[in-house]
Amino acid sequence: MTIWYIMDLVGTGVFAISGALSALSKKMYHDLFGLFFIGFVTAVGGGTLRDIIIGAHPLAWIRDPNYLIVILSSVLLAILCRKWWLGALQRPLLVFDTLGIGIYTILGMQKALALGVNDWASILLGIISALFGGVIRDTLVNDLPLIFSKQLYATPCLAGALLYLFGRSLPIDPNVTFIASVTLITLFRLVAIRKNWALPQIR
Amino acid sequence: MTIWYIMDLVGTGVFAISGALSALSKKMYHDLFGLFFIGFVTAVGGGTLRDIIIGAHPLAWIRDPNYLIVILSSVLLAILCRKWWLGALQRPLLVFDTLGIGIYTILGMQKALALGVNDWASILLGIISALFGGVIRDTLVNDLPLIFSKQLYATPCLAGALLYLFGRSLPIDPNVTFIASVTLITLFRLVAIRKNWALPQIR
Amino acid sequence: MTIWYIMDLVGTGVFAISGALSALSKKMYHDLFGLFFIGFVTAVGGGTLRDIIIGAHPLAWIRDPNYLIVILSSVLLAILCRKWWLGALQRPLLVFDTLGIGIYTILGMQKALALGVNDWASILLGIISALFGGVIRDTLVNDLPLIFSKQLYATPCLAGALLYLFGRSLPIDPNVTFIASVTLITLFRLVAIRKNWALPQIR
Repeated sequence: MTIWYIMDLVGTGVFAISGALSALSKKMYHDLFGLFFIGFVTAVGGGTLRDIIIGAHPLAWIRDPNYLIVILSSVLLAILCRKWWLGALQRPLLVFDTLGIGIYTILGMQKALALGVNDWASILLGIISALFGGVIRDTLVNDLPLIFSKQLYATPCLAGALLYLFGRSLPIDPNVTFIASVTLITLFRLVAIRKNWALPQIR
Repeated sequence: MTIWYIMDLVGTGVFAISGALSALSKKMYHDLFGLFFIGFVTAVGGGTLRDIIIGAHPLAWIRDPNYLIVILSSVLLAILCRKWWLGALQRPLLVFDTLGIGIYTILGMQKALALGVNDWASILLGIISALFGGVIRDTLVNDLPLIFSKQLYATPCLAGALLYLFGRSLPIDPNVTFIASVTLITLFRLVAIRKNWALPQIR
Repeated sequence: MTIWYIMDLVGTGVFAISGALSALSKKMYHDLFGLFFIGFVTAVGGGTLRDIIIGAHPLAWIRDPNYLIVILSSVLLAILCRKWWLGALQRPLLVFDTLGIGIYTILGMQKALALGVNDWASILLGIISALFGGVIRDTLVNDLPLIFSKQLYATPCLAGALLYLFGRSLPIDPNVTFIASVTLITLFRLVAIRKNWALPQIR
């Protein structure tokens, strides 16, 4: 139990940092509250939508103040370290963000499957958990959501989700399946960005 | 029961096609996942918001994989037939889309009324079911939602909803009331588009 | 009970008017339904999101038709009085809108706390109740949400929310704490607008 909880908090912090940095780099949000709000929405948006859809009340960040404490600290950290993280440290941050997406996809699927959701809907709910915080963030700042951009976002999540479903059906330790799926998502996306991969285009 | 279920699936497929075609015609979504996602949001967005508001868990597309299968097939069909449907077949598609709006409005009201929602809120929930998938789609692509455009969207739904409430209060076969209301919405909207009708403008 | 209920309806009406006037002043919504819809979303959006997040079913406007009647009348009133309210009466309207924000913040916190939400999450839920209707409205019309603009929005709410939590921990009549917190939010925001206060900017 404890390791999933820690992973969830790490993912929350990483997403809050990525939200605050994205706001800072767009030079749209200049005050403390705006930055905190955008970090908060990016961090909890996906999981909140998933839990509202499956009716999993009470939500994690409502029940447990640690999520808000992690978000607040992460946004402050992002403000303090903004020069490094928007400059030389951009690459390590991308790795963290991608790791967060991998963890959230599989944690979101686990939660949905545990509540009796069917396999196919659980894939969608895992992807929603991982990506919808970013979609809400981009919509709020009037950007075209990044998941529609050329960078592969959803396809690595889909691949990891299918691996996880396949692994669950085999007599394998669930932790191994979890780690393998998260690793697949993370490596797939990082290689895709590096090699500039894209899905086949329609017309 | 079966006929409502089939109608619901038909409406889902029609909305998924209309979402995918709208994305293709805007030349904004070029990859398979983007098209599927926009089809999915257009198809389930309105019903999901309605069910979340009235707390009707579990949601249809979570409980029943057929919805996702219908959406996936419909988006693939839209991609294959895009040349016809964005060209010569635009008119038949508009008829289908309008039929989908009519069916969803009344199905959404039925579901809300069955859960004890009062008449006036049920009208709003029926209209939300029918139109909010499109609103979310338009917001995601940074368009002004179509329901605010000159084409009459909500007024035919309102007329059909009032007819349905009136019919329910009379000793008439519910199926007749259902069909009459859906027909009113569909014909009203098609004639309004044809004749270029608009609501009175303020200033 | 009755006084909170009346305050809630007053807040609903004030927000519906502010939504309709904002739409009229942007010259984007010209027909009756568009104006009603934007008034409705502005009035119930924040409370709906709060109740969906904490799972407080059935929602007020679903359970009680008075909310919809108040919204409908307020939008019609806004249309009739649009020349005064967009002109000479702009200032009194701003006072009403700010009073609505104050009332909703504290009413939203009360509701969340009564359902066992922890103090910190209740602050966020109070602010969401007060401000998210406006965020949805601004997103629908493709504006950058006002809460990110220079005008102080969330900071007065935060100050009032902290005062309310502090007052609750003391042996004071809850009504006194309520009125003091709403007054703080209202005066703080009005003075901030008047004096052109802003939060410290990052970079």
